[in-house]
Amino acid sequence: MEFQLLAADSGSKARAGIITTDHGQIETPIFMPVGTVGSVKAVNQQQLKEEIKAQIILGNTYHLYLRPGTEILEEAGGLHKFNGWDRPILTDSGGYQVFSLSNNRKLTEEGAMFQSHIDGSRHLFTPERVMDIQRSIGADIIMAFDECPPYPSEYLYAKNSMELTHRWLARCIQRLGETEPKYGYRQTLFPIVQGSTYKDLRKASAEFVAAAECEGNAIGGLSVGEPEEMMYEMCALCCEYLPESKPRYLMGVGTPWNILENISLGVDMFDCVMPTRNGRNGMLFTSKGVVNIKNKKWANDFTPIDDGIDCYTSNFYTKAYLRHLFVASEILALEIASIHNLAFYLHLVKQAREHIIAGDYNQWKNEMIPILKQRC
Amino acid sequence: MEFQLLAADSGSKARAGIITTDHGQIETPIFMPVGTVGSVKAVNQQQLKEEIKAQIILGNTYHLYLRPGTEILEEAGGLHKFNGWDRPILTDSGGYQVFSLSNNRKLTEEGAMFQSHIDGSRHLFTPERVMDIQRSIGADIIMAFDECPPYPSEYLYAKNSMELTHRWLARCIQRLGETEPKYGYRQTLFPIVQGSTYKDLRKASAEFVAAAECEGNAIGGLSVGEPEEMMYEMCALCCEYLPESKPRYLMGVGTPWNILENISLGVDMFDCVMPTRNGRNGMLFTSKGVVNIKNKKWANDFTPIDDGIDCYTSNFYTKAYLRHLFVASEILALEIASIHNLAFYLHLVKQAREHIIAGDYNQWKNEMIPILKQRC
Ligand SMILES: [Zn+2]
Ligand SMILES: [Zn+2]
Repeated sequence: MEFQLLAADSGSKARAGIITTDHGQIETPIFMPVGTVGSVKAVNQQQLKEEIKAQIILGNTYHLYLRPGTEILEEAGGLHKFNGWDRPILTDSGGYQVFSLSNNRKLTEEGAMFQSHIDGSRHLFTPERVMDIQRSIGADIIMAFDECPPYPSEYLYAKNSMELTHRWLARCIQRLGETEPKYGYRQTLFPIVQGSTYKDLRKASAEFVAAAECEGNAIGGLSVGEPEEMMYEMCALCCEYLPESKPRYLMGVGTPWNILENISLGVDMFDCVMPTRNGRNGMLFTSKGVVNIKNKKWANDFTPIDDGIDCYTSNFYTKAYLRHLFVASEILALEIASIHNLAFYLHLVKQAREHIIAGDYNQWKNEMIPILKQRC
Repeated sequence: MEFQLLAADSGSKARAGIITTDHGQIETPIFMPVGTVGSVKAVNQQQLKEEIKAQIILGNTYHLYLRPGTEILEEAGGLHKFNGWDRPILTDSGGYQVFSLSNNRKLTEEGAMFQSHIDGSRHLFTPERVMDIQRSIGADIIMAFDECPPYPSEYLYAKNSMELTHRWLARCIQRLGETEPKYGYRQTLFPIVQGSTYKDLRKASAEFVAAAECEGNAIGGLSVGEPEEMMYEMCALCCEYLPESKPRYLMGVGTPWNILENISLGVDMFDCVMPTRNGRNGMLFTSKGVVNIKNKKWANDFTPIDDGIDCYTSNFYTKAYLRHLFVASEILALEIASIHNLAFYLHLVKQAREHIIAGDYNQWKNEMIPILKQRC
């Protein structure tokens, strides 16, 4: 993987760059749709490319390990072959899902014991095992195995957790050094900064992660319930200590305005289930603000869902028709809303990138945020 | 609406023709995907055109009347404008749904009283009201209001029901004669032959319907639980008395082999929820036979769902990936299976048409049916 910085905003820390992987290039800042089990919910691969214009998607190691399992993925020749997505893929490490989804989990120095949320079967995730699984999945960018402490966490808990994540990082790096990619293309490890909402821990963690000299770095443990201002403060601090020459990935964030703010702090990559999950509940992010499409007021609004973005679906279907599909519980409602929201996120980061290159990002961001936040 | 007969099979009663409506042409024999509330379940309008190659879709009057309601449809300028489908649409009369879905229904000479299955509200469908509703929906082909007796039905019940359907037909025709289409294009009424499984009733009903001299005719009340051989016998009888110069529509049928058999009896148009409903349950109709895609045997079958038909989705996704999506309860599974099954049905009637024109339909049909029926 290579990263090239192309432009920096004068009024903020925002940057525009380009990541090159063996499955193609990614223009940053970028938003990455979440494809939990190898499918972005309610969206097909052609729509991801042509309508949403996704450049990279995520897979969840925890989910893919349980279903379809590494054996099937290896037989297929990796996740790209299995799901027919030939552009870059990033996989998380499964740590977050082990702690949020599985049952009877037990954390030790060795790793995390847990029971599958599907069938109750017992499993052990260690840093080594998680690297091996990610070798089998075959994503272009793979994540270190970490513990993501909840918010709020006691200082001592957060410190111990961070130190465990750091020791696990060393084991991840060692395991990757001892193993080879399985499908003939490169895989790049991103370590994860933790430290909860404690400034000294965030600084220490960012310095530790930076010292590992990986090709890209991630900021984890934010957008887990803390106030937005605290998220921005922690993110800014992490960015300060993470090298400028490498892409920075803020995990699990967030709303459109969260993304614009964090871009201005120096973040290059984002992922979040919000556009698809909220979309399935009828909440649309549009170029005119937030729309609750189930609202009665849209029943006879025959204007396009959003004519402010370049997406066939957003321009073809009307608000009245989409509302009708939600009211009638039609599956097509979930598809249209998911496509629109993801296309809007990708549109937004593309706009952000153009404004960074033009040099007026900060001003544009400050004009956009109130529009994005308004309730239509 | 016009109907032109282009070719007839020498070994059977199969015919190839072309229907011309104000929203374009339909090549017969044709299968019409069912778009209950103005959306073919789990399939979008672009996929219907480009992948499935649907030439006409159905809407259900009962569902559309309840949601979004005729007021919204009129404000939109009719169903075509509301759902963005600019090819022909056919609407059923709602009779079938009143008797299968609604509550506390009561049948009188006047019409059918019922309570909505959604909110319990009370409604009265009369032949006149159903014609008015279909004027508001604005389909190209609209169906007469009928009662569809269950199978089995006593002779006397079936006879009285048929006679009521005939009296209602006269009222439908009169009402249409007194009203105008609302959106500037023509609407054509198809009357419906009933008579349960009694030959003399079917003959009487087909003769009554034929005498109404409408532009097309439908055969209702079949595929409601009777043995397949009885369906074919009744269908053949109806076709004998329905004019050759007008399209014949067999309602609610059926499996791929049901369709091929009924084409050989002289049917031109079909609709059925089977391809989408069974698709959503993981049952695929393919050019190699019937596939239960949830079966463990497909877990590592990385071949296309069906490379025997010209549909992007059927060729792009593998059986292993689709099985995985079903096992993981992903929405995309429903979309892929629905698109494939509908594309297969449209492929099949297109093949049928080509063999009718080539003159070897009956031979081809007899070779195809065992293949279509086999379990893979
Ligand atoms: Zn998130
Ligand atoms: Zn059917």
